[in-house]
Amino acid sequence: MIQVSPFDSGLYQTLLSDTEAGLWLNDQAQLSAMLKVEGELAMAQAEAGLIPADAAAAIAAAAASLIPDPASLAAGTASAGVPVPALVKALKDVLPAEQARWVHFGATSQDIVDTALILNCRELIALHESRIRALIGALADLAEAHRNTLIAGRTRTQQAVPMSFGFKVAQWLSPLLRQLERLEELKPRLLKTQLGGAVGTLAAMGDKADLSGQILARRLDLACGSNWHTQRDALVELSGWLGLSTGALGKMAQDWLLMSQTEVGEIRFSNGGGSSTMPQKCNPVNAEIILAMARQNAGLVGQMHQAMLHEHERSGSSWAQEWLVLPQQLMATAVALRHGLEALQFIEINAPCMLRNLGAFNGVIYAEAATFELARSMPRDQAAQLLKDACQQAIAGDEHLFKIVARLSGVQLDVAQMQQRLLGDGATGVWLDTLLQQAHALR
Amino acid sequence: MIQVSPFDSGLYQTLLSDTEAGLWLNDQAQLSAMLKVEGELAMAQAEAGLIPADAAAAIAAAAASLIPDPASLAAGTASAGVPVPALVKALKDVLPAEQARWVHFGATSQDIVDTALILNCRELIALHESRIRALIGALADLAEAHRNTLIAGRTRTQQAVPMSFGFKVAQWLSPLLRQLERLEELKPRLLKTQLGGAVGTLAAMGDKADLSGQILARRLDLACGSNWHTQRDALVELSGWLGLSTGALGKMAQDWLLMSQTEVGEIRFSNGGGSSTMPQKCNPVNAEIILAMARQNAGLVGQMHQAMLHEHERSGSSWAQEWLVLPQQLMATAVALRHGLEALQFIEINAPCMLRNLGAFNGVIYAEAATFELARSMPRDQAAQLLKDACQQAIAGDEHLFKIVARLSGVQLDVAQMQQRLLGDGATGVWLDTLLQQAHALR
Amino acid sequence: MIQVSPFDSGLYQTLLSDTEAGLWLNDQAQLSAMLKVEGELAMAQAEAGLIPADAAAAIAAAAASLIPDPASLAAGTASAGVPVPALVKALKDVLPAEQARWVHFGATSQDIVDTALILNCRELIALHESRIRALIGALADLAEAHRNTLIAGRTRTQQAVPMSFGFKVAQWLSPLLRQLERLEELKPRLLKTQLGGAVGTLAAMGDKADLSGQILARRLDLACGSNWHTQRDALVELSGWLGLSTGALGKMAQDWLLMSQTEVGEIRFSNGGGSSTMPQKCNPVNAEIILAMARQNAGLVGQMHQAMLHEHERSGSSWAQEWLVLPQQLMATAVALRHGLEALQFIEINAPCMLRNLGAFNGVIYAEAATFELARSMPRDQAAQLLKDACQQAIAGDEHLFKIVARLSGVQLDVAQMQQRLLGDGATGVWLDTLLQQAHALR
Amino acid sequence: MIQVSPFDSGLYQTLLSDTEAGLWLNDQAQLSAMLKVEGELAMAQAEAGLIPADAAAAIAAAAASLIPDPASLAAGTASAGVPVPALVKALKDVLPAEQARWVHFGATSQDIVDTALILNCRELIALHESRIRALIGALADLAEAHRNTLIAGRTRTQQAVPMSFGFKVAQWLSPLLRQLERLEELKPRLLKTQLGGAVGTLAAMGDKADLSGQILARRLDLACGSNWHTQRDALVELSGWLGLSTGALGKMAQDWLLMSQTEVGEIRFSNGGGSSTMPQKCNPVNAEIILAMARQNAGLVGQMHQAMLHEHERSGSSWAQEWLVLPQQLMATAVALRHGLEALQFIEINAPCMLRNLGAFNGVIYAEAATFELARSMPRDQAAQLLKDACQQAIAGDEHLFKIVARLSGVQLDVAQMQQRLLGDGATGVWLDTLLQQAHALR
Repeated sequence: MIQVSPFDSGLYQTLLSDTEAGLWLNDQAQLSAMLKVEGELAMAQAEAGLIPADAAAAIAAAAASLIPDPASLAAGTASAGVPVPALVKALKDVLPAEQARWVHFGATSQDIVDTALILNCRELIALHESRIRALIGALADLAEAHRNTLIAGRTRTQQAVPMSFGFKVAQWLSPLLRQLERLEELKPRLLKTQLGGAVGTLAAMGDKADLSGQILARRLDLACGSNWHTQRDALVELSGWLGLSTGALGKMAQDWLLMSQTEVGEIRFSNGGGSSTMPQKCNPVNAEIILAMARQNAGLVGQMHQAMLHEHERSGSSWAQEWLVLPQQLMATAVALRHGLEALQFIEINAPCMLRNLGAFNGVIYAEAATFELARSMPRDQAAQLLKDACQQAIAGDEHLFKIVARLSGVQLDVAQMQQRLLGDGATGVWLDTLLQQAHALR
Repeated sequence: MIQVSPFDSGLYQTLLSDTEAGLWLNDQAQLSAMLKVEGELAMAQAEAGLIPADAAAAIAAAAASLIPDPASLAAGTASAGVPVPALVKALKDVLPAEQARWVHFGATSQDIVDTALILNCRELIALHESRIRALIGALADLAEAHRNTLIAGRTRTQQAVPMSFGFKVAQWLSPLLRQLERLEELKPRLLKTQLGGAVGTLAAMGDKADLSGQILARRLDLACGSNWHTQRDALVELSGWLGLSTGALGKMAQDWLLMSQTEVGEIRFSNGGGSSTMPQKCNPVNAEIILAMARQNAGLVGQMHQAMLHEHERSGSSWAQEWLVLPQQLMATAVALRHGLEALQFIEINAPCMLRNLGAFNGVIYAEAATFELARSMPRDQAAQLLKDACQQAIAGDEHLFKIVARLSGVQLDVAQMQQRLLGDGATGVWLDTLLQQAHALR
Repeated sequence: MIQVSPFDSGLYQTLLSDTEAGLWLNDQAQLSAMLKVEGELAMAQAEAGLIPADAAAAIAAAAASLIPDPASLAAGTASAGVPVPALVKALKDVLPAEQARWVHFGATSQDIVDTALILNCRELIALHESRIRALIGALADLAEAHRNTLIAGRTRTQQAVPMSFGFKVAQWLSPLLRQLERLEELKPRLLKTQLGGAVGTLAAMGDKADLSGQILARRLDLACGSNWHTQRDALVELSGWLGLSTGALGKMAQDWLLMSQTEVGEIRFSNGGGSSTMPQKCNPVNAEIILAMARQNAGLVGQMHQAMLHEHERSGSSWAQEWLVLPQQLMATAVALRHGLEALQFIEINAPCMLRNLGAFNGVIYAEAATFELARSMPRDQAAQLLKDACQQAIAGDEHLFKIVARLSGVQLDVAQMQQRLLGDGATGVWLDTLLQQAHALR
Repeated sequence: MIQVSPFDSGLYQTLLSDTEAGLWLNDQAQLSAMLKVEGELAMAQAEAGLIPADAAAAIAAAAASLIPDPASLAAGTASAGVPVPALVKALKDVLPAEQARWVHFGATSQDIVDTALILNCRELIALHESRIRALIGALADLAEAHRNTLIAGRTRTQQAVPMSFGFKVAQWLSPLLRQLERLEELKPRLLKTQLGGAVGTLAAMGDKADLSGQILARRLDLACGSNWHTQRDALVELSGWLGLSTGALGKMAQDWLLMSQTEVGEIRFSNGGGSSTMPQKCNPVNAEIILAMARQNAGLVGQMHQAMLHEHERSGSSWAQEWLVLPQQLMATAVALRHGLEALQFIEINAPCMLRNLGAFNGVIYAEAATFELARSMPRDQAAQLLKDACQQAIAGDEHLFKIVARLSGVQLDVAQMQQRLLGDGATGVWLDTLLQQAHALR
């Protein structure tokens, strides 16, 4: 058996693939969906008065019960460059000739392949959506729980200013809310039938074409897409949505990797990979895989855009290129989401360590906040200058900033109050409230 | 002077770049927008009661009149990794110390750079939008004019079934309508301020943070974005939109290149590049450049997705990667649209040639339609068999399909009626009407 | 069973995958190679005096006979983020404790995975190489056979100047010769062991480390690679070589698609996909798939470059990203080569059609050559001017260029001689001879 | 003036661009090189007896002195889709008609553009090469100096085993040596003339074609490339080499970013960007930019592979796509190398901090090494078990591993000796010696 992709590996299935997503991507799922489309097309055409009702019923019944062996269609697929002719033949073979001749009537292979793809995409994005919702819930809980946990805000590898860890978590959450919004906008453009016949004009269905198409769409609970054989913008938009999803997760996973470094130690994943000879190791496997999926998906979005340039009324090569790309993206997104959810089950937050890390450089990370605090008891300019001096001493020496300030100004900084400001002030509070409300509203 | 990109070349400016788009992308445009943000930020903070009103007025006035030499900021930009500190210094230098100290108060460099980018993006997508609308108009006119022009529908490099050239044009048009729809959905997510301060929490603005942000947004006529320093999904969504735009144009340009081949000759661009020693040449330059922009943009979308993985509260590298990508995309899209509009001014449609090409293989391209026609005067099965035989003879010999059919069946095909069916039947008519109405509604 | 990639599909296996390449890419092939590395490592370490000889022999024997079920290792693979710990455990389980403890001694998982990958890559590039050689042979024969077949040289979609079809074929061939050259240069950098232990220093093997590594390399017939855990340049170079291979094939396939268009008709693939309702169709499936593979490989090369940025002494994410990319490239290249070879078995060259196409635009494509010919009997300037006039008349009217020239100058062009010049003159002849000699030397 | 790319910005020139590389990439550099090719072509053709010697001399002289304004050629460039016709006209305009007619004789625009590109590429890769050599030198010095500096080897974000920092530096160096090797292999394929005339056959030069080409190559000190108008493998190979270069640098920069994190603090760049309100900040700007260039170059390699699919004898679109990609890559590589060299001037190594970081988790990072050490005084199995117990205690409690071992076994570990083993044992020593010798040999 040929098996190239880690998505399809027995060995890597738990690490790099996803069983639930797999249900809608394999040969069987594709063939079932194609047969469903053939069956519903016949029923729609009968309803429209284009083909005999008994033929349609027979076709739909045969399509519903036929389970072809994919390998048996491989030769036909290779010869035609697309699996439909061989599949249609297999379907016709189980029908009487009089009924068989109405199978696939006036349709083209791409009508079947694309509509089947959309049917399976509908299931897959439902899976993605439910996982995004679960992730939003888990992150909202975490943000809520750690609203008052201080952590070093870090910019460009350097500690910058203390902030709320809950705020950091809410940042991870925020693009996921927008992803749900985008998904609602995308659905009506994506979830539509493909029905155009040989060159998109449905000429072979004559004056029943439009009606047949409308009924087919209704039967499949899809919008009526007419013909988008070579206008692939909705699929490419889906590709972008998938890339945005894993991009958002990838940013979070990147942060997880950085926070779980031995020297940082602010989080730890209790399901992390270990080593017998290196007992201190706790490899953040979930985060690594999310990041790999994000990088892979990013490149694949570019590939789907490359595949937009279909020639004339059908491109054999651009279309085949989509087949090599989009299924990977649908899977990669499901994999990343699953690892995100799993990681949040095993994440251990080390709040004391977060606080301890803030002490690096003798507390100069508090300089900005301390200026504010000090300005309560002296002119702002003077406070700023005093802090500047204090910072220099703190960096040069061994003394903590707060002690130096006390020594220089006689003022004991109210550290607790200062930290409270850092946690709740600014726009953080308002923004966080709004965001968490949005997240809660989804439950 | 350093000049690497053809976008910035004097030599290639007319071929590969765009003057109008250039206005919003160069150093001067970036610096002006940044200064505007600094000025409006001061005004907003004064209105919120955070800084003195006279200082704000002075800052806004200075920001509005300052025209810094970009090169003079180069050293500061290199040292900080971002131009804002040097620009803020230049702005402070023209103000009294008492007022200067309120410049950029509580903001971070990225607040300024990103909000300025959004201001210029607003202008650029307005340019894109107006060109897309113009293109829709031109294509709608062309589709209307050629609704009844027959052309060979072609799939996988082969002539398939005759169809309406107006339908083909409408296919080029259709994704552009969806692009306008997507743009409206994107705008509220994209056109927003960036204001987060050092680590996104606006801590340094204390309890005036939220209000200052709201006022700033109102003054700039943007949504209030709070902080999206490291959540770049809206920019990446823009990147995808740009890629979809050039992808749609690229598919059209691809068709143009194929249709203008010497051996096809169905269209010709009267502004095509010539050759003194090869007088027959008429190189479709516009189409070539559109295609190159589409390919380039496709890859760059992938790059923007790669750039999503910002670390912690600011990434120096992912952010810089955006700078290398997004401006190119904004320009490439403008260039492709300009070439599209220009090409439609010079396109020459050779309808007789389209009809002539249909005659290849002795008219077997009409086989499907002829079966329908013949089925008016004999059973459908019999008609199909007769056509099958006729096609074999047509391909093998020198006789046209219609003559063979007449010889075999005694029926003279009503070619005009058959062509009329091909042009207007199927779902084509309904779809085309709807589409052209949508296009007209935009005028 | 999960199956996402068309490479791994029963349905698409003949169209989009390759059985021979598949042999070296699936789980079983990976596990066998890993076991071989574990066995040979033990033998090498025994020879170096690091572990007991009887333990090594037992390990090597067990490794050679163990056939683990990939799925049984899935949980361990997911937990560790890499399959080796679970595989090592399975290997130890079939050995007595005293010998089991010497399994994988001092090695790290990546040593095993990477060396196993190289072993399988060796087989795969041998497959690629043999197919490239076969392709060179087939193209050389075709070039030879059509050295004197005239075809229109075409630039930028337009007929330009007549040339030899054999020359065109030789152009397709030429990069393949350079690919063999590049492969020879790449092999010593690629075909090397990976052996570094935990962080690349082989510390756990003490003073036997270097010797063990040398012996292992000798036993596996690879160069001794020491440690390249995070320096992946050789793998990325391979990725580029694969992309260059399919790029060269893709250019050829692109030409095939253009030449087989209905309106061009210069070649035809007798194994092309057909249609019952469109008897004229002959879809160039091989060429389409080659092109799709070329586009996919192009994007994947970029992905492998993205995966170069491993962190510190091992990156869990960059490494996993390679797993998602390189196997696809190795397969895509094999698929493209197979389709190239198959297409050349079924290609039908229509030389009369090539000559007929040259007649488009009343033969003005001969203008340049006719000037040369005419300059034998009149001053060059005068000849050029006369041809210019003649071309204008030819394009405007219905008369062939040669007739107009005869009318204007009284000179009957010696068409045969002129064509002979076009076929054999210029640098074509010398270049073609050299190239064909190189190709023949490979047989 | 249009200016889109940060490479071409006055503002970003020091941060994101490079003056030296810029010299060979701008309009002027391109036009000068094209004029040189036109001049040398004339001289070569005269020497071959194809055109009059005095005309050639006049052409060469005019080409050497002409300095056209790029903008004056913009309209012609746009019309033809390539700058050469306008440039040739400008050259002819400064020559008497009798001599002007021999300008560009029998050549095609692409001959001139491509050969000019190669001439400038030769300068650019010489610049890259010299910088790579300088970088190798600087890294070799650093590796030498820190051969005996202990640092934590880190895998998958976790401290793994102690190792030599000099070894880590040498790992950064090693791919650069291979890049020099690859460059030598690439040069003969890349540094060659392009000369094919209209469709690659040089038909218009008749029987002087081959000789003219040979002489031109000799005069330009290039290999004789005949025609590679549509076989772009050498340019794409160059693209890959550039991507490998920045990939190798990017891996190093990634490590720098990680090592300079506040919480790690093992290195610091004294030229790092600071902040007035955050005195502890020291942003590693060089490393960030290198990383951004690596990511950008990675994507652009994919784009160059996409651009390989030229149609027939010239592709207007694929060729234009190269123009949008390759110059960026040549510049990005120069920029990354410059930042690499600059960073090494300002890098500060904090060896005590490296040692301190090793103490995390109470020294369990020494577990593997301690087992070896202990095995000198007790059976290996017993030593392993003892260490396992000791590690559990060290992780659970507050005691250092060495103390626990002493308590459990009575053995005082010889830490100095153990560290010496970690620094010098394994294959590290041999490998490092060889590598440094190779590096020294390049001076």
